[in-house]
Amino acid sequence: VNPAIVTLTTDFGLRDSFVGTMKGVLLSRCPGVQIVDICHDVPPQDVRRGAMRLAAAARYFPTGTVHLAVVDPGVGSLRRAIALHVGGHYFVGPDNGLLSLAAPMTAADWSGIALTRPEYWLPIVSNTFHGRDVFAPVAAFLAGGGALGELGEPLTKIRSLALEDPVRLGDSLHGKVIDVDRFGNLITNVKASDLLGFGVDRIRIGEHVISGLSVSYDASRALVALLDSDGHLEIAVPGGSAARDLQLAIDTPVEVFSRADPSRGG
Amino acid sequence: VNPAIVTLTTDFGLRDSFVGTMKGVLLSRCPGVQIVDICHDVPPQDVRRGAMRLAAAARYFPTGTVHLAVVDPGVGSLRRAIALHVGGHYFVGPDNGLLSLAAPMTAADWSGIALTRPEYWLPIVSNTFHGRDVFAPVAAFLAGGGALGELGEPLTKIRSLALEDPVRLGDSLHGKVIDVDRFGNLITNVKASDLLGFGVDRIRIGEHVISGLSVSYDASRALVALLDSDGHLEIAVPGGSAARDLQLAIDTPVEVFSRADPSRGG
Amino acid sequence: VNPAIVTLTTDFGLRDSFVGTMKGVLLSRCPGVQIVDICHDVPPQDVRRGAMRLAAAARYFPTGTVHLAVVDPGVGSLRRAIALHVGGHYFVGPDNGLLSLAAPMTAADWSGIALTRPEYWLPIVSNTFHGRDVFAPVAAFLAGGGALGELGEPLTKIRSLALEDPVRLGDSLHGKVIDVDRFGNLITNVKASDLLGFGVDRIRIGEHVISGLSVSYDASRALVALLDSDGHLEIAVPGGSAARDLQLAIDTPVEVFSRADPSRGG
Repeated sequence: VNPAIVTLTTDFGLRDSFVGTMKGVLLSRCPGVQIVDICHDVPPQDVRRGAMRLAAAARYFPTGTVHLAVVDPGVGSLRRAIALHVGGHYFVGPDNGLLSLAAPMTAADWSGIALTRPEYWLPIVSNTFHGRDVFAPVAAFLAGGGALGELGEPLTKIRSLALEDPVRLGDSLHGKVIDVDRFGNLITNVKASDLLGFGVDRIRIGEHVISGLSVSYDASRALVALLDSDGHLEIAVPGGSAARDLQLAIDTPVEVFSRADPSRGG
Repeated sequence: VNPAIVTLTTDFGLRDSFVGTMKGVLLSRCPGVQIVDICHDVPPQDVRRGAMRLAAAARYFPTGTVHLAVVDPGVGSLRRAIALHVGGHYFVGPDNGLLSLAAPMTAADWSGIALTRPEYWLPIVSNTFHGRDVFAPVAAFLAGGGALGELGEPLTKIRSLALEDPVRLGDSLHGKVIDVDRFGNLITNVKASDLLGFGVDRIRIGEHVISGLSVSYDASRALVALLDSDGHLEIAVPGGSAARDLQLAIDTPVEVFSRADPSRGG
Repeated sequence: VNPAIVTLTTDFGLRDSFVGTMKGVLLSRCPGVQIVDICHDVPPQDVRRGAMRLAAAARYFPTGTVHLAVVDPGVGSLRRAIALHVGGHYFVGPDNGLLSLAAPMTAADWSGIALTRPEYWLPIVSNTFHGRDVFAPVAAFLAGGGALGELGEPLTKIRSLALEDPVRLGDSLHGKVIDVDRFGNLITNVKASDLLGFGVDRIRIGEHVISGLSVSYDASRALVALLDSDGHLEIAVPGGSAARDLQLAIDTPVEVFSRADPSRGG
């Protein structure tokens, strides 16, 4: 039988000992557990981007994986601590939207618990590090085969992030940049599903106009738009960095024009 | 039976191959060992902060864990290489104080060995990378169940870091900032035990005066002082970064005034 | 029996979810596999430095290890995807030179396959993330004991990096800086083997002249030259950073003069 898996997604970075401490708690409470880092460099306190990281990676893990996520500006306040079970995966973290993209309430088999039973936590709980004191012990309990229902009271609702969808105005889609990856690629909120049957003619971002979608980072072009590996429209400078070379950042508007748009003069 | 655990705490960073190389040695010499990163972003050559990272995280790991730590400005010089056994945990690294906070000589069951037997090291030992050539093979030997005593000569003393304690002058405590975490929180050398029965009235740091201790990152206040998850007095800007917003850094003096302090005019 | 090992060397960094996603695929396709990070902070698109990181670390891992490497500016183009078997280790990645230092074609037992059988990949293959869609499933297959030959067509040749060797002119060797590590040490392309019987008199870099080789980071000297743990000539400022303190970077010329050099006036 293979070891249980716990993934970690946090904004703790790797220069302090927060992540190492959580791993110690996991290994102490669930000997042999396999710990896998998804990402610890979520920008500090950025719940939205933490939620995006978790949602992008979690679905590639095997059934039974426990996903422990901590981006928690409200630690020590009245925000709830929760554990969810969706699609055969467990999710543990604060109820601030962080889990809501990976484990949306709209999922058919969604179930959740408010973590209200301190007997499953560390004996002493700080007001500043629930990753260590609450979430890691709970994740270890679930990884060891414990039952979700024991951990607290059933939930009917969690805080969910409302990611802005692009707006369609006639024959154009108005979206924006929602993330920038390590390569400087600009990730937009325009999804492949938004473009089904749309017939992309050109994309405008800042002062730049890109004609049509490329199928890859086409090195013969200075600037390309393509669908990225997660199904989002992405703007890239092949061999360079769109963010740096174009001096563009998160929240920059992006417009997609369809071939039917009369202003193209076609 | 669960796999043995080796933790790693270094200043090697993750942009070179030093850490990967050490992991290869560990896995070659102790197949199946579970390797856990505590922290590799200790500031280069900063023994004191490496010791703090190790001490904060190590105690959360299960009994039998081997903690391998390398922040080693004296590699290749005459500084000793050591292995310690304290509280059921093993510690391996240079004798420069790095292990002395996690495995202090004052511990009741402290025992140690100077690593003097090259037959437990790699066949060729460089003068620049003892993490690979000496410490990783020794940690693998201990993780595989080897006996500490085989590795060298018993020690009676190691180099120990003298962390400055805060000084009490009448009704005030004079400490300083000793660390800054990823969130910009200012960690001081004032510990919870220093404040027992003290009755905190206010804290002064730089030009700022904070009244009383908060119990959490109270979002209704612009600046708070609280006891952090490791028992240190911490200065924080809720939702911001104290280091950046206040432009304060390590070594900044911090004063804590008790309610009994006559200068408060109470 | 111990779990199979897959190492990861990429330029994906740790701020996005690329690495976590690949780990999910590995664990889904090869339950229980032991995943070890060699390095994810290869400078973006820098195939040469990725190849150096992999070559430095890979040989310390046990026989049977699968080394998965992705620094892949040509993803989605016509560059081939390959898997190699050399010295008892497997290597999986793009055919752009990345694997060629760790698994050189000159090795006696070299064998390779062009990855041409999509039935071993994820069902849907993007044009931007072959690490997830092609390389991780193939590495998982090999880690699970699958046969290399099933994955595609035998190779007779791969793209190999031509690292510039230093040039000998009379009694001096002309090399250059090829890497800078986290400590600011300047790593050159002059190797220990280049200096066999050479009799080093002095080293010149920028405006600095260093007399003789040191055997370690000799704290009594302001600037030293020594052979590093990987067998390269290295220039270091003990206790400081040569890169920062001397303001020198990659590609800086380095000259090594032998004792036989008449210009030394000896």
